[in-house]
Amino acid sequence: MSYLDKITSPTLLLNEQICRKNIESMAAKAQNQGKELVPHFKTAQSQLIGDWCKEYGIRQLTVSSIKMAAYFCNKGWNNIHIAFPFNPLESSQLNTLAKSQRISVQLINENVTQKLADTLEHEVGFFIEIDAGYGRTGVEVSDFGLIEAILLTAKKTDNLKFQGFYLHPGHTYYTADKQQIYKESIAALSMLKNKYSTEYPELKTRVGDTPGCAVVEDFGDVDQIGPGNFVFYDMMQVQLGSCQKEDVAVALAVPVVDIKKERKEILVHGGGVHLAKDVLMEPNGEKNFGEVVLLNDQGWTIPSSRSFLKSISQEHGIVKASDELLNTIKVGDLIGILPIHSCMTADCMKSYLKLDGEWADHVEGA
Amino acid sequence: MSYLDKITSPTLLLNEQICRKNIESMAAKAQNQGKELVPHFKTAQSQLIGDWCKEYGIRQLTVSSIKMAAYFCNKGWNNIHIAFPFNPLESSQLNTLAKSQRISVQLINENVTQKLADTLEHEVGFFIEIDAGYGRTGVEVSDFGLIEAILLTAKKTDNLKFQGFYLHPGHTYYTADKQQIYKESIAALSMLKNKYSTEYPELKTRVGDTPGCAVVEDFGDVDQIGPGNFVFYDMMQVQLGSCQKEDVAVALAVPVVDIKKERKEILVHGGGVHLAKDVLMEPNGEKNFGEVVLLNDQGWTIPSSRSFLKSISQEHGIVKASDELLNTIKVGDLIGILPIHSCMTADCMKSYLKLDGEWADHVEGA
Repeated sequence: MSYLDKITSPTLLLNEQICRKNIESMAAKAQNQGKELVPHFKTAQSQLIGDWCKEYGIRQLTVSSIKMAAYFCNKGWNNIHIAFPFNPLESSQLNTLAKSQRISVQLINENVTQKLADTLEHEVGFFIEIDAGYGRTGVEVSDFGLIEAILLTAKKTDNLKFQGFYLHPGHTYYTADKQQIYKESIAALSMLKNKYSTEYPELKTRVGDTPGCAVVEDFGDVDQIGPGNFVFYDMMQVQLGSCQKEDVAVALAVPVVDIKKERKEILVHGGGVHLAKDVLMEPNGEKNFGEVVLLNDQGWTIPSSRSFLKSISQEHGIVKASDELLNTIKVGDLIGILPIHSCMTADCMKSYLKLDGEWADHVEGA
Repeated sequence: MSYLDKITSPTLLLNEQICRKNIESMAAKAQNQGKELVPHFKTAQSQLIGDWCKEYGIRQLTVSSIKMAAYFCNKGWNNIHIAFPFNPLESSQLNTLAKSQRISVQLINENVTQKLADTLEHEVGFFIEIDAGYGRTGVEVSDFGLIEAILLTAKKTDNLKFQGFYLHPGHTYYTADKQQIYKESIAALSMLKNKYSTEYPELKTRVGDTPGCAVVEDFGDVDQIGPGNFVFYDMMQVQLGSCQKEDVAVALAVPVVDIKKERKEILVHGGGVHLAKDVLMEPNGEKNFGEVVLLNDQGWTIPSSRSFLKSISQEHGIVKASDELLNTIKVGDLIGILPIHSCMTADCMKSYLKLDGEWADHVEGA
């Protein structure tokens, strides 16, 4: 029986072979440079894929919420880092996790550091998040006053252990010259390492996002890299030059419910609640919510002429179809959609169907 | 104990009083014109809110997937209509539901009608979806050939019962003159009713979307109206003129994790996985992913100076904050966000916290 026989409604397919190749390739890149790969699991959110990572020597991971940390807690990870500025309302949950799991949080202000110092009952590590130009979050790299204040406040308790500096240069998503961004990011981390390594000889520096880690070949003296999306990649990463379409490891299988040949449109059950609403712009100004692939018993193939989702609403998707696709597909068939943003699609779908017909897990709930 | 004491992470709040007022008001409008209100439950996806609807005389509802139909099956509804072109891969699930629940589907082509005729084991109603200008899906209003073909094919089985014509004029979301769209939509349905009512004297016509149903006062000879979003409304509906901010019945409570006073920014835990990525444009070109309200033990208030989410990523939200907000809020507090698109936010969050501290249900899974 083919995995396809299990599908009657929108279903997220996971190609294990491609996913493993992506993990292996990033792990090899890290190893070749003597860096530790600490993947961000906001993308996969899956224990099974976590187990695959362990096979490639990965021993720590990063998550983006305490709920996600709880999901990976006590599953054999040396450390779980929550790469989101710590939310002091979750101190009690953090204490619970830290009883049995080595865990670290991210700090960016004195206020939360003090709250943590006041409430922690178990040892927890922390990274100071550094902003070296992205502007979303973190301590500005030159704000030594704030860095010192956080370190000083943390010293009030033995339960808070400084682990190092974390830098997410997310502006690689919006800037062509990713090498330059990494030069600046690595220089910032290097400067901080030099400044603080006398007092904290064990401190680590971590940099990482997929567009950068995919193309940068020299990470300087950074200790760890932390990309997330690379396990699956997606059409946004294809557009950014991080990968090829052949490297995308997930596709949403969607049922075809109507075909309008004269308009060259195919209506599918697959919309914003399945794919999320991330969008790319075509050169002619059209929107692209995902690219069509052809499904078969072994997985999917990329057709020679492109078709893509030109519009979506909550459950509807309209494919702008090539003649090749119109001649191949009929109502009642399934087609595949390579997502624009696989992290968001996986978070919408909450599970994966592998090509062997078995399901892979994903963190549940919001 | 306040409902606020239950919240440590992003949580979707539901104000029952506002929600009931929205339902009551739309039900009264329908009743005053002798129309039946058949709300689209893709927005609320909640049995509890379904029960509230029953208190205002609502006896039928609409859903957008068979999964959602299953959720409301055998809960006392006279009919559940699945307002999505029927997906023939789900024939077996449809047969299961139709054993015990009066149900109707939407048909737009001969092919699927034939497949249904071949596989149905129980009686199921159907609406033919009509496209009178929106262009997303449906039979073009002048395509009598296709309408006749669907009706003729359906006659091959006693299990398919024609119920009428369904029209979703979704272009009201993109067009200022909603009255004109409704004039055209109502005229189209009226023409079809006249043409087919001799053969099908029981046929009903249904029109409805929230921007139209909120502002149109004369629905002509249409039998039923079918808006969905009106139970909650949202900032998109405020912008469209369907409602006031005071009518929005849901708000996402988000923890404040950092404040950058000099930039007038507040960092919250609340991003695309909670709100979805629907966006409005501010007059100055800035993006707006949701508007800030101030939470209190009784619910929320709309501040006199506006603050809004100017950017979001997977879990992060950055509020462009007014001075008033910056002077009121501190790290560790909760603030509320009125969503841009409440249907998508509710679908992300999968549950509601009411202001009495009790939880309301939502369909689970993708």
